[in-house]
Amino acid sequence: MTDQDETHRTLRSDAERNRDRIADAARAAFRDLGADAPMKEIAKRAGVGTATLYRRFPTREDLLSYVFADRLTGCADSVHVALASPDPWQGLVDHISHLTHLQLEDRAFTAVFLHEFPPDSPVSHSHAEAGAALDRLLDAAKTAGDLRQDVDADDVVLLLKANDGVLRWSGDPARESRRLVERFLHSFRT
Amino acid sequence: MTDQDETHRTLRSDAERNRDRIADAARAAFRDLGADAPMKEIAKRAGVGTATLYRRFPTREDLLSYVFADRLTGCADSVHVALASPDPWQGLVDHISHLTHLQLEDRAFTAVFLHEFPPDSPVSHSHAEAGAALDRLLDAAKTAGDLRQDVDADDVVLLLKANDGVLRWSGDPARESRRLVERFLHSFRT
Repeated sequence: MTDQDETHRTLRSDAERNRDRIADAARAAFRDLGADAPMKEIAKRAGVGTATLYRRFPTREDLLSYVFADRLTGCADSVHVALASPDPWQGLVDHISHLTHLQLEDRAFTAVFLHEFPPDSPVSHSHAEAGAALDRLLDAAKTAGDLRQDVDADDVVLLLKANDGVLRWSGDPARESRRLVERFLHSFRT
Repeated sequence: MTDQDETHRTLRSDAERNRDRIADAARAAFRDLGADAPMKEIAKRAGVGTATLYRRFPTREDLLSYVFADRLTGCADSVHVALASPDPWQGLVDHISHLTHLQLEDRAFTAVFLHEFPPDSPVSHSHAEAGAALDRLLDAAKTAGDLRQDVDADDVVLLLKANDGVLRWSGDPARESRRLVERFLHSFRT
């Protein structure tokens, strides 16, 4: 290994370390403060300058997309697990419970879930895939006779928006969020 | 009339004018920015100094309570109209529609509606009265056989919290809010 290789490798691992530190800090800041957590606060938590932050992630959208890529892949996986269930209604119940739980865990999740990212961002593929899989799941639950014909993916999105309001205002968010889900599922059921 | 009377009268009407200007500015700022609209912004919109604002309304709570007193009296009236209806279920539907419409009109309404004001504030009487009347309305709709026995006033409050989330995230808030109300009413109905 030449000295130049060694220098190159060190620089690259510094860059990676910075990126990881920024991602960890951003994940925590988004969880605590929501998707509009100040970039300055994220830089401060990561222990880097704002210039470094903006060099790695030129926009907030880049940062959100990077940080939430895993979680949105997890959502897509959750629909596929639901689709594989012998009981599509139970699959839908489990999937909705998974999504609303992610909202409870992380205040920024709703914003990321509802945001339309540009087609080339890390999250947009899993976003689109999860949407298509959800449509198939709803169709399967209708075919099984458990889901009302007038329910569609917009109703699931409506539930997530509603749940964000409940989480924001409730003194006992876990309990009230469950109650909201029960109300919705009751109105979804044939 | 003595000169002193005249001076006194002018001072008092200046004070009243200031109070009205502050209330109008606060109403608009709360509507546009929500219940946490900066006091500085309210003073600016009213064209008064922050010292004048704080002299009239020492806390944000005083200001919210003053500005929303009429609207909360209106809510209490709305439950009483519902109670007078020959069909308590229809009364409940109308009352819920009234409340969710107030939320649509004014971003601060939810915060004021959900806030617990001290017992001596202008809004607390109508708050308590509306709550008691809502309980009677729910009982009447249950007795008529239209409302499920497991629904209580907490479910109506849950709907208002949920609606706030929908209004916050929706691109078409009036339509999606109606859809949310339909989902809830469907789950309320026997």
